Amino acid sequence: MGTRMKSALPKVMHEVAGLPMVGHVIQAMRGAGVERIVVVTHKAGDAVRAFAEKMGAESVIQDPQLGTGHAAACAAPLLKDFAGTVIVCYGDMPLVTSATFDASFASQAETGMAMIGFRPADSGAYGRMILDRARLLDRIVEFKDANAEERAETLCNAGILAAATKEFFYWAGKLDNNNAQKEYYLTDVPSLAKADGVRCAVIEADEVEMMGVNSRAELAKAEAAMQVRLRAAALKNFVGLVAPDTVHFSHDTVLEPDCAVEPYVVFAPGVTVRSGARIRAFSHLEGVEVGSGAIIGPYARLRPGTVVEEDVHIGNFVELKNTRIEKGAKANHLTYLGDARVGAGANIGCGTITCNYDGFFKHKTDIGAGAFIGSDTALVAPVKIGDGVMTGAGSVITKDVPANALVVTRAPQVEKPGWAEKYRAVKKAEKAAKAAKKP
Amino acid sequence: MGTRMKSALPKVMHEVAGLPMVGHVIQAMRGAGVERIVVVTHKAGDAVRAFAEKMGAESVIQDPQLGTGHAAACAAPLLKDFAGTVIVCYGDMPLVTSATFDASFASQAETGMAMIGFRPADSGAYGRMILDRARLLDRIVEFKDANAEERAETLCNAGILAAATKEFFYWAGKLDNNNAQKEYYLTDVPSLAKADGVRCAVIEADEVEMMGVNSRAELAKAEAAMQVRLRAAALKNFVGLVAPDTVHFSHDTVLEPDCAVEPYVVFAPGVTVRSGARIRAFSHLEGVEVGSGAIIGPYARLRPGTVVEEDVHIGNFVELKNTRIEKGAKANHLTYLGDARVGAGANIGCGTITCNYDGFFKHKTDIGAGAFIGSDTALVAPVKIGDGVMTGAGSVITKDVPANALVVTRAPQVEKPGWAEKYRAVKKAEKAAKAAKKP
Amino acid sequence: MGTRMKSALPKVMHEVAGLPMVGHVIQAMRGAGVERIVVVTHKAGDAVRAFAEKMGAESVIQDPQLGTGHAAACAAPLLKDFAGTVIVCYGDMPLVTSATFDASFASQAETGMAMIGFRPADSGAYGRMILDRARLLDRIVEFKDANAEERAETLCNAGILAAATKEFFYWAGKLDNNNAQKEYYLTDVPSLAKADGVRCAVIEADEVEMMGVNSRAELAKAEAAMQVRLRAAALKNFVGLVAPDTVHFSHDTVLEPDCAVEPYVVFAPGVTVRSGARIRAFSHLEGVEVGSGAIIGPYARLRPGTVVEEDVHIGNFVELKNTRIEKGAKANHLTYLGDARVGAGANIGCGTITCNYDGFFKHKTDIGAGAFIGSDTALVAPVKIGDGVMTGAGSVITKDVPANALVVTRAPQVEKPGWAEKYRAVKKAEKAAKAAKKP
Repeated sequence: MGTRMKSALPKVMHEVAGLPMVGHVIQAMRGAGVERIVVVTHKAGDAVRAFAEKMGAESVIQDPQLGTGHAAACAAPLLKDFAGTVIVCYGDMPLVTSATFDASFASQAETGMAMIGFRPADSGAYGRMILDRARLLDRIVEFKDANAEERAETLCNAGILAAATKEFFYWAGKLDNNNAQKEYYLTDVPSLAKADGVRCAVIEADEVEMMGVNSRAELAKAEAAMQVRLRAAALKNFVGLVAPDTVHFSHDTVLEPDCAVEPYVVFAPGVTVRSGARIRAFSHLEGVEVGSGAIIGPYARLRPGTVVEEDVHIGNFVELKNTRIEKGAKANHLTYLGDARVGAGANIGCGTITCNYDGFFKHKTDIGAGAFIGSDTALVAPVKIGDGVMTGAGSVITKDVPANALVVTRAPQVEKPGWAEKYRAVKKAEKAAKAAKKP
Repeated sequence: MGTRMKSALPKVMHEVAGLPMVGHVIQAMRGAGVERIVVVTHKAGDAVRAFAEKMGAESVIQDPQLGTGHAAACAAPLLKDFAGTVIVCYGDMPLVTSATFDASFASQAETGMAMIGFRPADSGAYGRMILDRARLLDRIVEFKDANAEERAETLCNAGILAAATKEFFYWAGKLDNNNAQKEYYLTDVPSLAKADGVRCAVIEADEVEMMGVNSRAELAKAEAAMQVRLRAAALKNFVGLVAPDTVHFSHDTVLEPDCAVEPYVVFAPGVTVRSGARIRAFSHLEGVEVGSGAIIGPYARLRPGTVVEEDVHIGNFVELKNTRIEKGAKANHLTYLGDARVGAGANIGCGTITCNYDGFFKHKTDIGAGAFIGSDTALVAPVKIGDGVMTGAGSVITKDVPANALVVTRAPQVEKPGWAEKYRAVKKAEKAAKAAKKP
Repeated sequence: MGTRMKSALPKVMHEVAGLPMVGHVIQAMRGAGVERIVVVTHKAGDAVRAFAEKMGAESVIQDPQLGTGHAAACAAPLLKDFAGTVIVCYGDMPLVTSATFDASFASQAETGMAMIGFRPADSGAYGRMILDRARLLDRIVEFKDANAEERAETLCNAGILAAATKEFFYWAGKLDNNNAQKEYYLTDVPSLAKADGVRCAVIEADEVEMMGVNSRAELAKAEAAMQVRLRAAALKNFVGLVAPDTVHFSHDTVLEPDCAVEPYVVFAPGVTVRSGARIRAFSHLEGVEVGSGAIIGPYARLRPGTVVEEDVHIGNFVELKNTRIEKGAKANHLTYLGDARVGAGANIGCGTITCNYDGFFKHKTDIGAGAFIGSDTALVAPVKIGDGVMTGAGSVITKDVPANALVVTRAPQVEKPGWAEKYRAVKKAEKAAKAAKKP
C-alpha cells in the first residue's frame, strides 16, 4: 500500500530510474540465477501483481497482513516443495544487487542459513544483529527491546534471509506472535533454526544497497543513489558525459563507448545510443535507438518506436514518434514527425508536420530518399512522398507525390501598397482614444 | 542600495525563490502576527517602498544613513506610540522564519528584551554576544574591539531585537555615535536598557536562518538554502519529486500531495498543481493552475493567467498564455495558445497558432468543446470556433466558424513532374562552378 | 592517444569547458608570457597538431615514445638555442593557471631550476618529492621504488619543470633509460642538474590545478572543477546567477556585471552577454552577443553568428542562426531565423520561418525596421521585406515586398456546414467495426 507515501500507487510500484522498486529486486534476483520469484502482495495490490506477471514473476496475496514472517509464509503453497534454496527480501530495496544475493546463496550453502547485515551511518532504530564467537548469528534484537550494550552494536538487520526451502517454510509455519504487535516476525526464524541445529551466517552488505524506502524523501534518496551508480557505470564504459550529475538515466539505458552526452539530458526507459553518436543538451529520449554518428538536439524529443540511423541530424524543438529516420537524413528545426519513415539523405525543412491523426486513427507518412521537404510543409497522412521529391514552402500535401516531382500548394502573393502604414495610423488613433477614455 | 552587488536593483529587492529578500522578512513577520511593518529605506529606494506598499507594509526614508540604531529610530514617528512589542530585523535575511520571530516575542514578554544569537561554522568578524551567569546578555562586543577571550566566544549577534515599543524608541533616541565609524549602533540598545534595569534574553537560531546577503555569491547561497527548504517541504507533503535537486521552486509554489514532478522543472511564482497531475521534464510554469490528472510537458511553457483543467494533455514545445484549457482537451506539439479558451475534449493539432496580437491590441480566440484543430492552423483573433468544428491542416481562419462545420483555406496541390531532378542538376552544376572559381 | 579513454579523439583534445585540454595549458602558458609553445605529439596526433597551430603553437612528433624525458627532448630541435627559460608541462592538466607558471619562472630565476609539487588528499602512487634541509629538491622517488619513510612524504610531483633552456636540453640529452620501463624520465633531470651544481626549488600548487586526466571519470571531474571556478568568477564579477550550479559555462564565456542568468542555461563557446540582459531558463547560446536590456528565452537557442541588440526579446522555442536582431525587435515564439537581419522594432510573429536553404546554398532574409511579420509566415530567401511591412498570417513570401505594404498569400476560407459531425459518425462506426473484428 502507498499509505505512508500518500500515493494512489502501491509503494513498491514507485519507480527508481524508471523501473518500479519491486522490479529492481526481481531483476537482481534473476541476475543471481533465482529460478522462481514470488511477490507477496496486499489484497489491493492488483498493480503489483500485474507488474510481477509482466516481469515473469509469480505472486500471492497476504490477507490479512500479520507480519514479515507471515508474509514469507504466504508463498509456501507455491514454493514449499521447491528443492533448492529460498531467499526472502523486501520489495522496497531497489538498490540491492545480484552480487549480494550471490553471496547470500554461497554463505547459505556453507552454513545452512544466511542473513544480510549492514552498518548504517546512523543505526537508529534498526534491529541489531548479535553474533557469537564463531561470528554466526546469535540473535536479532529489535531496537526497542535492546539493552545499552546491544544498542551499541552497529551491525543491523537488512531483512534478507536465505535458507533451504523446505526447512524455511517449516520454521515459518512455527513462528508465533507473542509480541506487542501480535505479528509473526521473519527475524524469529534464525532462533527456530538454531534450536534445530541449523546456524545462520551473517554477511555484510553496503549500506547504500540495503536502503529501504518508506517516504517520498527516501524514494528521492534511492533515486539519487541509483543515478550515482548508473553515471559511474557509464563513465567506466567510456561514455563521454560532460556533466554526469546533470544526466538522468533509466535502469536500462544503453550508451555505447565513445558516444557523447551533453548536460541536461533525460533518458527515459528503452534507449540505446551507439558509439560516435552525440546527444546534445536538453534532449529527452525514450524507447529509441540512435545510430553512430548521429547528432541529436539540443532540445530534441525522441519518443518510443523511433530509430535514428547513422549520421542523422535531429535539431532543436523536433519531436519524433514511432518514426524511422534513415541514414544521413536531417530534421533540424521545429518539426514533428510521427508514424513516419524518412528515407536516407532526405532533408526535412523547418516547421514540417506529419498530420498523422485524424481524430480516430493514426496514419503513416512515407518520405523517400533524398526528398527535400520545404519549410512549413504539412503532410496529411496517409501520404507517400517519392524519392527526390521537393515540396514548396508552406504546402499542405494530401495526395501521394511521384519521385522527383516538385509539389506545391500556394495562393499567389498579393500586395497592398501602403496598407500597413494606413493601418498603423488607424490603430494608433484607436489606442490613443482608448487611453484617453480611461479615468 | 545595490552597490556591493553592482546592481541597478536595491539589495533587498534581489529575489530569493522569486520573492525579493525583504518580502521574505515581511512574510515571516506577518506569519508571527506582526501587525504593522515598517521598512526603513534609503532615499533612492523607490523600488523598495513601492514593493513594501504592495506587500501591505509601511515605509520610511533614512537620510542620511547614520547606522543601524539610527535606521531603527527612523521608524519612531510611525511606531513610537504603538502599545505592543517592536521587533527589528535586517531586510536582507531572507531565510528567517516566523517561528524565530515567535520565539523572540515570547522571550521578550518574559524578560523585557530579546535578541537572537547564532553559532556560525565560521564566526569570522561577527559581533560576539557575551552572556552573564544568568544566561542573559551582558554585552555585544564588535569583533574588532574584542579581546582574545571574547573572540573565542562562538555565539554571534544576528541583529534581531525585540523590545517594548515605547522603551525601544526611548533608548534608540539616546544612542550616541562615540565610535570610530561615527554611527549609532542598534547593538548599544541592550546596554542602555540594562542601565534602566531591563535585561535582554538571548535565544539561539539556526545559522541558515540568520544568513545575511552582501554579495552575489551569498545571494546564490541563500537561494540554494531556500531551495533545500522548499524541496524538503514538498517531499514531506508527499509530492513525487523524482530528482528534487533539479526542481526550482518559487516561494509560493503549491504542489498537492501525490502530484508528480520530473527532473528539470522550473516553477516561477504563482503555480498550483493538483494531486494526480504530472509535470514532465524541462517544463516552465508561472502563474498557472494545473488540474488533477493533467500531463504537462516535457518542454511545456505555461505562462500567467493559464488554467489547465483535469485530464488535459499539454505536450512538447507548447506555450500557453492567459488561456483556459478545459477538461480533457489536448495540445500535444509545437503550439502557441494565447488569450484563448479551449473547450472540453478539443484536440489542438501540432503547429496551431493563435494570432492574438495585431501590433496594437490583444484579441481572444474561443475554441468550442470537441473541436479538432488540424495541424498548422493559424487562428486570427478575435475568432470563435464552434463546438465540434474541424479545421483542415494548414488553414488560416479569420472568420467565426459555426459548430460542427469543416473549415479550410487551401490552394490546390500542384505537381511538376521531374522538376526536382532538373533543379538538382542545375544547382549541382552551379555549386561545382563556384567551387572551381575559388583560388 | 585516446586509448585509455576508448576514444576516437586523442586524449588532450577532449574538451573541458568547451576547449581541448591542451588548449587550456597553452592559454595558461600564454597568460604567463611564454613566447614559444611546442606541443609534443604522438605520430597519429594530426588533430592535436592542427589544433596547436590554430592556437598559434608549434608542434613536434615523438616517435617512438620513450618516456617523459624523451618527449621533452623532442622539442630540442626547435628550442635548444632559445635564450630564455623553458617550462615543461603535461598537456592533460586543464586546470593549471598562469599564476603557477609565473611562480615557476620566478622560482627558477632565483634558484636555477624549479618544479611544482602538490599535496593530494590521496597521494596514492604519485612520485614523492624529497626535500633537503634547505627545502630544495633532493630527489624524486617513484612510488614503487619508495621505502616506507619516503611513501609517508605527502609532497607529490606534478610533472612541471622550469629550467634554463640550454641547460635543460643538455640534461635531457644525457638521460638514460636504466629502469624497468626502459624509459627516459623527466624526473631524472634534477639529479643531473644537481651533479652540475644547479639546484631545483619546489613550489607547491593547489591540488585542483594539478589534476591530470586519464579516464572519462577524471575528465568529468576536471570539467566539474572548471565549472566551479568559472561560476565563482562570474559571481565575483557581479553576475546574477540564480542557481550557479545549474549554469554550464565555456572557458571564454563573457558575462558582464549585473546581467542575469536563470537556472539551466548552457553557454557553449563564444558568448558575450552585456549588463542588464537576462538569459532565461533552459536557453542554449553559442557564438553570440546579447545586448543590454535584451531578454532571451526561456527555451531560446542562439547559434553562432548571431547578434542580439539592446532591448530585444527572444522567446520560447526560438532558434537564431547567423542573424542580427536590431534594437527592440521581438521574436517571442516558435520561430527560426537563419542568415537574416531583423530591423529595429520589428515584430516577428509566432511560427515565422526563414527558408534559408535551397538544398545547395544558403540565402539571406532581410526584414526592415518596424515590420510586422504575421504568425506562421514563411520567408523564402533570398527575400527583402521593406520597413514597416505587414505580412498576413500563414503567408509564404517569395518576392521582395516594398516598405509599408501589406502582403499576403491566402486561399479563401471555405466552410462545409455539418461536415465534421457526419465525419465523426462515419469514423466512429469504422472504429467500432474494427474493434468488433478483433478476436
